[in-house]
Amino acid sequence: MELNDDYFMKFALKEAERAAVQNEIPVGAIVVVEDKIIARAHNLTQRLNDVTAHAEMQAITSAANYLNGKYLVGCTLYVTLEPCVMCAGALIWSQLNRLVYGASDPKKGFLQSGVQFHPKTAVTSGVLKNESKNLLDDFFSSRRKK
Amino acid sequence: MELNDDYFMKFALKEAERAAVQNEIPVGAIVVVEDKIIARAHNLTQRLNDVTAHAEMQAITSAANYLNGKYLVGCTLYVTLEPCVMCAGALIWSQLNRLVYGASDPKKGFLQSGVQFHPKTAVTSGVLKNESKNLLDDFFSSRRKK
Repeated sequence: MELNDDYFMKFALKEAERAAVQNEIPVGAIVVVEDKIIARAHNLTQRLNDVTAHAEMQAITSAANYLNGKYLVGCTLYVTLEPCVMCAGALIWSQLNRLVYGASDPKKGFLQSGVQFHPKTAVTSGVLKNESKNLLDDFFSSRRKK
Repeated sequence: MELNDDYFMKFALKEAERAAVQNEIPVGAIVVVEDKIIARAHNLTQRLNDVTAHAEMQAITSAANYLNGKYLVGCTLYVTLEPCVMCAGALIWSQLNRLVYGASDPKKGFLQSGVQFHPKTAVTSGVLKNESKNLLDDFFSSRRKK
């Protein structure tokens, strides 16, 4: 099996599914270095009662723990949804190599804010975006029914 | 003693001084609700090996813990330095009432990025800015001498 972006995004989607089961908005993230997953996380804002507990924030903290250094040089972060301004800001501080995200978030995503990554950080969007969007749509539509 | 912005910013400055003693970039933050300080924090990026451990992020998490709810409605956050994009993003999520900061940060502050707070959030800048800037300047000049 080829270790491409689709392959790794599936792990981020699995994290997002875990969030949904826990009644958290389904967003998942993983951090990969040299084809190895070193961090997995999903949104935990409800359980932790904390607006800062987005998937990306926890993945950054977890990867830094694993690396025993705060900079994610050489790392790629996969996240199922376009990061918000907070998470984009954190990713910029982390100096990661590459950001890969799935669905766009025209309302709360970093793109509409004007925030820009360092030119050294490659950004790829739209990877398994339908799978990610479906998860989010199902989550919100089942919440509305309750 | 009048409980004005200068009064509260002094507590944030005290937090910043605590950071400097621990060899952390001296930035401090507190959260106030109804003239009561409910959270105090300072930068801990070095000790925690974590780029997300800014003073504001920890103050938000700590205040939410105290309030037992993730939104800081009715709260004012005082921070000695203009928040970065990450922290501004977190503060926007937190729905706080008011942000008061000291020194400007033309390079890494949120203002240059174009990030904007919700119109309901009042933003005041420049409170004890010289005290804050002096702390930062002293810190970086003593680091350069080492």
